[in-house]
Amino acid sequence: MSALSAAPARPVPLRPHPHRLLPPDPGVRALARRLYESVRELPILSPHGHVDPRLLLDDEPFADPAALLITPDHYVTRLLHASGVPLADLGVGAGPLTEDQARAVWRRLCEHWAVYRGTPVRYWLESELAEIFGVTERPGPDSADRIYDQVADRLTREEYRPRALFRRFGIEVLATTDDPCDDLAAHRALAADPTWQGRVVPTFRPDRYLEPGRPGWAQDVTRLGEAADTDTSTLDGFLHALASRRRYFVEHGATSADHSHADVRTDPLEPAEAAHLFVAALAGEASDGACTALRRHLLLEMARMSCEDGLVMTLHPAVARNHHAPTFERFGPDTGHDIPLRAEFTTALRPLLERYGTADGFQLVLFTLDETVFSREIAPLAGFYPSVYAGAPWWFLDSPDAIRRYRRAVTETAGFTRTSGFVDDTRAFCSIPARHDMSRRLDCGVLAELVAEHRLEEDEAFETAAELVTDNPRRAFKL
Amino acid sequence: MSALSAAPARPVPLRPHPHRLLPPDPGVRALARRLYESVRELPILSPHGHVDPRLLLDDEPFADPAALLITPDHYVTRLLHASGVPLADLGVGAGPLTEDQARAVWRRLCEHWAVYRGTPVRYWLESELAEIFGVTERPGPDSADRIYDQVADRLTREEYRPRALFRRFGIEVLATTDDPCDDLAAHRALAADPTWQGRVVPTFRPDRYLEPGRPGWAQDVTRLGEAADTDTSTLDGFLHALASRRRYFVEHGATSADHSHADVRTDPLEPAEAAHLFVAALAGEASDGACTALRRHLLLEMARMSCEDGLVMTLHPAVARNHHAPTFERFGPDTGHDIPLRAEFTTALRPLLERYGTADGFQLVLFTLDETVFSREIAPLAGFYPSVYAGAPWWFLDSPDAIRRYRRAVTETAGFTRTSGFVDDTRAFCSIPARHDMSRRLDCGVLAELVAEHRLEEDEAFETAAELVTDNPRRAFKL
Amino acid sequence: MSALSAAPARPVPLRPHPHRLLPPDPGVRALARRLYESVRELPILSPHGHVDPRLLLDDEPFADPAALLITPDHYVTRLLHASGVPLADLGVGAGPLTEDQARAVWRRLCEHWAVYRGTPVRYWLESELAEIFGVTERPGPDSADRIYDQVADRLTREEYRPRALFRRFGIEVLATTDDPCDDLAAHRALAADPTWQGRVVPTFRPDRYLEPGRPGWAQDVTRLGEAADTDTSTLDGFLHALASRRRYFVEHGATSADHSHADVRTDPLEPAEAAHLFVAALAGEASDGACTALRRHLLLEMARMSCEDGLVMTLHPAVARNHHAPTFERFGPDTGHDIPLRAEFTTALRPLLERYGTADGFQLVLFTLDETVFSREIAPLAGFYPSVYAGAPWWFLDSPDAIRRYRRAVTETAGFTRTSGFVDDTRAFCSIPARHDMSRRLDCGVLAELVAEHRLEEDEAFETAAELVTDNPRRAFKL
Repeated sequence: MSALSAAPARPVPLRPHPHRLLPPDPGVRALARRLYESVRELPILSPHGHVDPRLLLDDEPFADPAALLITPDHYVTRLLHASGVPLADLGVGAGPLTEDQARAVWRRLCEHWAVYRGTPVRYWLESELAEIFGVTERPGPDSADRIYDQVADRLTREEYRPRALFRRFGIEVLATTDDPCDDLAAHRALAADPTWQGRVVPTFRPDRYLEPGRPGWAQDVTRLGEAADTDTSTLDGFLHALASRRRYFVEHGATSADHSHADVRTDPLEPAEAAHLFVAALAGEASDGACTALRRHLLLEMARMSCEDGLVMTLHPAVARNHHAPTFERFGPDTGHDIPLRAEFTTALRPLLERYGTADGFQLVLFTLDETVFSREIAPLAGFYPSVYAGAPWWFLDSPDAIRRYRRAVTETAGFTRTSGFVDDTRAFCSIPARHDMSRRLDCGVLAELVAEHRLEEDEAFETAAELVTDNPRRAFKL
Repeated sequence: MSALSAAPARPVPLRPHPHRLLPPDPGVRALARRLYESVRELPILSPHGHVDPRLLLDDEPFADPAALLITPDHYVTRLLHASGVPLADLGVGAGPLTEDQARAVWRRLCEHWAVYRGTPVRYWLESELAEIFGVTERPGPDSADRIYDQVADRLTREEYRPRALFRRFGIEVLATTDDPCDDLAAHRALAADPTWQGRVVPTFRPDRYLEPGRPGWAQDVTRLGEAADTDTSTLDGFLHALASRRRYFVEHGATSADHSHADVRTDPLEPAEAAHLFVAALAGEASDGACTALRRHLLLEMARMSCEDGLVMTLHPAVARNHHAPTFERFGPDTGHDIPLRAEFTTALRPLLERYGTADGFQLVLFTLDETVFSREIAPLAGFYPSVYAGAPWWFLDSPDAIRRYRRAVTETAGFTRTSGFVDDTRAFCSIPARHDMSRRLDCGVLAELVAEHRLEEDEAFETAAELVTDNPRRAFKL
Repeated sequence: MSALSAAPARPVPLRPHPHRLLPPDPGVRALARRLYESVRELPILSPHGHVDPRLLLDDEPFADPAALLITPDHYVTRLLHASGVPLADLGVGAGPLTEDQARAVWRRLCEHWAVYRGTPVRYWLESELAEIFGVTERPGPDSADRIYDQVADRLTREEYRPRALFRRFGIEVLATTDDPCDDLAAHRALAADPTWQGRVVPTFRPDRYLEPGRPGWAQDVTRLGEAADTDTSTLDGFLHALASRRRYFVEHGATSADHSHADVRTDPLEPAEAAHLFVAALAGEASDGACTALRRHLLLEMARMSCEDGLVMTLHPAVARNHHAPTFERFGPDTGHDIPLRAEFTTALRPLLERYGTADGFQLVLFTLDETVFSREIAPLAGFYPSVYAGAPWWFLDSPDAIRRYRRAVTETAGFTRTSGFVDDTRAFCSIPARHDMSRRLDCGVLAELVAEHRLEEDEAFETAAELVTDNPRRAFKL
């Protein structure tokens, strides 16, 4: 029997276990359960993610199960692609699907359900299907249509609209990720809507403007100037425009600025050299090396601005984006082939931390997809600098075993208080509660193990479990 | 009492426990046992290893216990060497041993039995001694001669000849590793032997021909030309000869080509530049950098040929071979001092994967001795590219804790189906069943833990346990 | 409730559990307890650390609880600093404290007790407070003064003087770390003191003399010449002086020489080039690259000398010292912002190991703060070279989970006998027993798990547990 055709003929129940993800030792699990019960219902703080604010502004019903749970989610599509399903068969990059198309996409997922065994994608989807949509049978070729019908039916109901789900999920704050030129109209409209109580805040994400070597950068710089009503043909003007857009974001509720480049080096240039390189880059006359040098200088400038305007600086470095050019050209970015690279923080961040590492109010959250830096670099940095927080395990590492490794690698050097709290980083709206719930279960398991080994007292474990869900993200992201 | 002289005076029983390597928690172990029982007797697929096919062709009795279990096996000799036993005292590089010599070598092992505590070598040898040779006492200075006599006696018996053991071990397929110039006479003779039913397939291993910087390379290129009956004085001719030898291997049953270089970079050269460098290298006039550039170009050509002839491409990179030159000079290669290096796949393989990563029928199995790439690079690559498989933990990592770490690092991103299945990679014929059995026990333990944490259902665990032993190697190696 | 103000109003008991740090599974723990009981009372061998020998020579009472347990210990102060407590508020770099100041420092620790949850610092301090000073309540804002008073009172008693504690701790050997120019007067005086029975040995630590690029190096070279009564204006003279000071250390009981540079490369220079660079560096005329090249050459020379004088060579590489320049300028070195870097041993040590790796009597202990090298490089090196030992997890890695990871990463390739045994590396005298006790508990847990998985027999586990505490450090450090 192959994994690819392993669907049983008769319905198999889907019943996410109430004690899932808790440690198997009976004594440890009993405490882990009590810890988890104490934090299970706490509100969700989501300080970093990729949900579109228009979703909540418009509050339209979700289109169909495939568009909701498969097509736009590269966590889901990538493993299907690896298993031989072309992205085109999943509706990637295709715009709205007909019902037949959507159903066909859904069937591909269900036929390949076995490829997700042992992955968090499987865990999240199970939780979503069972707990949000009331599905009671396991996805498979035979159940695919029944499950599709059930989810599709629910999506037509009032209580499955985005705002209703937002409330049902218990989301207290949701941060979006936004382009510096965005006028934040959706955020403004939401804030002005008397029928809407939720807190949705933007995040300043200036990557494209800080990469002088990227095709289209010069046009982006011009657009930025227009958005900020500033001449950006000089470095001074450009920095002024960035500062201005940051203030605009702060005025609209932003608390952080997010950065993702190939590395986090922050080597300063001499002002005259920086100004010169900027003009050369605008003219398309800067070498690759010069563009990289300018980018590193600009990242340092972003830190300086954070000291001024208070936006928390978050770094998500070291990913080779769009690794497979043919797929990128046909389907665009975020289609499952961003592949991590080795990361380095100790040397790269030294110029930044020497300048701002102990500055009042400056905060820097370090994320990584390279686990080797957790114990070697991030925890030692977060265990000394008052500004530095060890970011939660992210993306490929937002998974049970990786989360445990993170806690075991970071806590011994930096404790619990220097960690950021959980970040879902998702564009899959319905996965938000499952992801936060997973994190809570795992942290409670780790705490229970510490108590079982008499490294922590029970009262401390309860207190820490709650803090990780509430105080830590509030502190790290200034929520 | 020192570890080096820790032999008890009276016989200590040797009794490998039936539940060894299964998780200690009683509930988890109970399920792990049932899983293991369900796969224990399945046939062995060995898609990559270093057994000499003449062993099975000639079917001669093994010489003696030392020659069978110690002298040729660098896994065994290296830790004795570290413990102060000269390789010369172990018969390394010495040709056939007299009985006195063989017995003396055997005694050295038994005297130092304690140095293997906690290692897989100890585990394999125990399994082999107890389960193949019926030894019932622990090796030590006092038991050394008795055990030697028992094993030596067994080796004289008909049922301990290679072919009998092959059948007893339940080996369904055994892949050897062969030089491209090899005429595969042994494979042909075996295939033609009506008294032999086993499947023994060659593997194309062209490393020496792809390293223009290696002393002797030009002669090897000439030999290759002779074997392929082709003029290899130009790059075109050389590539033609390689393609021809690959076809020859395919005709003789090969399903894969194996490559082990210092890195896996696959940067293409312009055709004219490559042709020029090839000629310069043949003339001994290419710089080190040029030779490396040519090697990387040639590795890319190997991928191209794999797309054409269907040989699975397997990569075993990043080992500093023959680290200790004086030992190499005296005792030759494979004598225990190949030391791993940092590995990198994301950037290095980009040119190859952009060209062939989604090509029909192309398959690439990535092995590493650098565990950091499992979660950072290999699993993300295997979780997107239909061609890429995460190779089993290999060599120093073919050990219980490392295998668990591999599953925990890879599964969350790539699931189970994108992994290669177990590869023993051994030249120690008698260790094959113990190695495969170890892998089965460990995978069943990992699966049982997933069930215990309610991350997998029991029926799925049983199905996956069987697939890892059968479907996965068949799929990854096209067996 | 925030972690930073989480002090309960009424006293909370402080009761380190007798089974702390042992594995939670009841069956495994029962064996781990018996193993631990068998080694708990064995004497302490401390082959590497930073206690000042004058402490034992003078045998003065310790000044106060803050000066004893907080101010000089960067393990303790760093996480307070990260939590917003300025180093100045902790008395760092301030000289002796008044009682009011000391008490204020103590209160800062107790107020922030929660930030240490899950860290070994918390574990050590608890053990010290409870087991050395008889404290029975948990540190916190309310208990701070009571605990201060109790510890301060004990420090006035005869049995809390350094020599009494040395005996009470059961220390058999204590190695200090000393400058090559040190006249070792304290060591001599201790050795000559008929009322003192303890063994306190110096360690040769020549880093500053081997870094030609460091400000002040030329003066240090001159001082070295004075100490050795040798002209150090040439490389030959300098090497002669080093060899002479090494002999002096050997005569005073030293068994090892410790080295900590940014990397461990050991590339040899041609003698004439080395001599030339040395003179240029003395004149301040060598480039950064030349200084680095000379340092690597000198490290190789140190290995050569180790072959001659028998001093064990220990390497503690790859730390960015004094990462935050403003803190360094104000408070000096060892103030909590040394941050680890990526490490590499395989290539870096090849020249050294090709020359001396199998030399009679040469011993090399490799330490790392980069866990990735444990399974990839250190264990493979220690599993082949008779000279190489895998150093214990050190500094940030001297913590429960990291120690377990170390054993699991190293043992499968190098066994137990090729590991150094525990090294406390501390300047916090009172933490020595807690640190060694922690190591014993963890090793016994690891051994119990191996037995529980039937990978080791019980008699072997008992023997190994004792060897790790006694034979291993004796062998690795020639004690």
